[in-house]
Amino acid sequence: MIFKKCDSFYFTFLPLEINRNTLNSYSNQREMQNKITSLFKIKYPIVQGGMIWCSGWELASAVSNAGGLGIIGSGSMYPHILDEHITKCKQATDKPFAVNLPMLYPSIEEHIETIIKHRVPIVFTSAGNPKTYTARLKEHGITVVHVIASSKFAKKAADAGVDAIVAEGFEAGGHNGREETTTLCLIPKIAQEVQIPIIAAGGIGTGKAMLAAMNLGADGVQMGSRFVACEESSAHINFKNRVIQSVEGDTKLTLKDLTPVRLMKNEFYNKIEQSYVEQKDANYRAELLGRGRAKKGMFEGDLVEGELEIGQVASLFDTILPAAEIIKQVIQEFEEAKALQNSERFTF
Amino acid sequence: MIFKKCDSFYFTFLPLEINRNTLNSYSNQREMQNKITSLFKIKYPIVQGGMIWCSGWELASAVSNAGGLGIIGSGSMYPHILDEHITKCKQATDKPFAVNLPMLYPSIEEHIETIIKHRVPIVFTSAGNPKTYTARLKEHGITVVHVIASSKFAKKAADAGVDAIVAEGFEAGGHNGREETTTLCLIPKIAQEVQIPIIAAGGIGTGKAMLAAMNLGADGVQMGSRFVACEESSAHINFKNRVIQSVEGDTKLTLKDLTPVRLMKNEFYNKIEQSYVEQKDANYRAELLGRGRAKKGMFEGDLVEGELEIGQVASLFDTILPAAEIIKQVIQEFEEAKALQNSERFTF
Repeated sequence: MIFKKCDSFYFTFLPLEINRNTLNSYSNQREMQNKITSLFKIKYPIVQGGMIWCSGWELASAVSNAGGLGIIGSGSMYPHILDEHITKCKQATDKPFAVNLPMLYPSIEEHIETIIKHRVPIVFTSAGNPKTYTARLKEHGITVVHVIASSKFAKKAADAGVDAIVAEGFEAGGHNGREETTTLCLIPKIAQEVQIPIIAAGGIGTGKAMLAAMNLGADGVQMGSRFVACEESSAHINFKNRVIQSVEGDTKLTLKDLTPVRLMKNEFYNKIEQSYVEQKDANYRAELLGRGRAKKGMFEGDLVEGELEIGQVASLFDTILPAAEIIKQVIQEFEEAKALQNSERFTF
Repeated sequence: MIFKKCDSFYFTFLPLEINRNTLNSYSNQREMQNKITSLFKIKYPIVQGGMIWCSGWELASAVSNAGGLGIIGSGSMYPHILDEHITKCKQATDKPFAVNLPMLYPSIEEHIETIIKHRVPIVFTSAGNPKTYTARLKEHGITVVHVIASSKFAKKAADAGVDAIVAEGFEAGGHNGREETTTLCLIPKIAQEVQIPIIAAGGIGTGKAMLAAMNLGADGVQMGSRFVACEESSAHINFKNRVIQSVEGDTKLTLKDLTPVRLMKNEFYNKIEQSYVEQKDANYRAELLGRGRAKKGMFEGDLVEGELEIGQVASLFDTILPAAEIIKQVIQEFEEAKALQNSERFTF
């Protein structure tokens, strides 16, 4: 229930007694519910990251059906493909889901039209100025969340009127901030700076990490890597297998002179690194990256020459599971980690 | 109480009934106590990082007197200076304290002699092979802890027989690992791999982060940056002030072709970065670094040309406090964060 905007209305027009009681009752209800589950009308404050080539309608609907928030990653979709995915997602779930909208996307206007046409309830914007589309989306009753990697941009997003932010640390897969602030340092800082709900991302794939992030001040979490290697993910099976076999140190933040991105190390990554050793300039790397590298790696399964975006946390899990099982395990582990706080480890 | 070694003795020589009861009682006591407070015989599982130029006897004794574990950072001390600091620390506290021993230190044999002579109860080794000195130190009844930044080295340390490890994430100040694994990803992985107690380090300066790290599987925490800007720290007041004024993004991991180190950005840091832009080789940077840069910055207060080692977490605090007050605040915040888990944020 989004009640905040109605407060003044109730105060103005209702008789005082009803007014107070109503407000208290609504207010208690609101206060006694997690801000993220309340904002998105979902069961668990777990958001599935909107990831190019991995998160189509199958993953998004599976996550939403399991009580989290599924996101269709529109950045790798032609407009008619996004239309199709939204249509199928609506058929596959009656729960809320979202679309992730990278603002660099060339046909963004068509994407926005499609989102509005389908009355998608929630949009996650990223890689751009939150002022550009927030008001327009909200005019259509859409809840808007913006992805940031620093408290400076968190404040900008809050000022632009977004309903929540995803705060993404250095350990996250894919594109990342220039400050290299880790989730452990980022979340408490952002909690100091903004009042809107915070979804922590980067390094989170387990219930323990979910509890840790929420203890730092997050209201919920976003998990990307864990859902890449998930049955309903549209990632190629080669990539899923590579992810669950990965070990510590297998990913690295690179291409910092273009847009910093965390990749799984492979032959393509080695070529990037070699280009730095050989002191090639940024243009050389932009050409090397070219077009379609991410599709080649993540969707077509070329583990040698493809771009494989994944987070550090990949080294922590070793099985491909259905999305519902992942969410079940995460919540169970979250509760177990809370209960462990009565153990000797926390006794001093 | 270190009881493990005595178990077989009791089993052998005591009458069965007493034996069982005694063991159960000791065992319960041990099980119901945090492994780090039990191992070091301290009140809180908070270790002050052993930091060159910042952690002499004044800081170490203040932390130990406040219920944490104070560490004298011997890496910046001539042998006779370490002798003096240990002597003064023993005069200033009757609580356990430790000495940090970077194994790269040229006069390490003299340092070890001094440590043994003074019966220092605990030694933290770093920057070297844990096999080299662990057995020798333990022969003298010294508890040995080794600092690592990856689970590969955590296993090596456990195999070398150390009593605990400090697992230090990418966000930590000073020297750091090459894998760039953040604390959030490192601690759960290490908890999967080794059985010995884990002290989490990197990004921890508050009670919330302490709780988060312990949720991830750590038995205790080490805080460095927070104690740099502390009244009893021997850091220059200029450096302390710079630390508490720092903002997000003010630190960076650099000198990766020498030994990766996290520094506060300043003119010296800019020169390093410029050397990469100008494609100078590693020798140029080694010369640029030269000798005495860290002393110049952290001890003599030259904020322009000095090397200022500090962690990302520095941007989170803004006052110079006595060590005892820091520990009090951290424990209070830890308890508050635990209590917050009954709030609406955790209700779903």
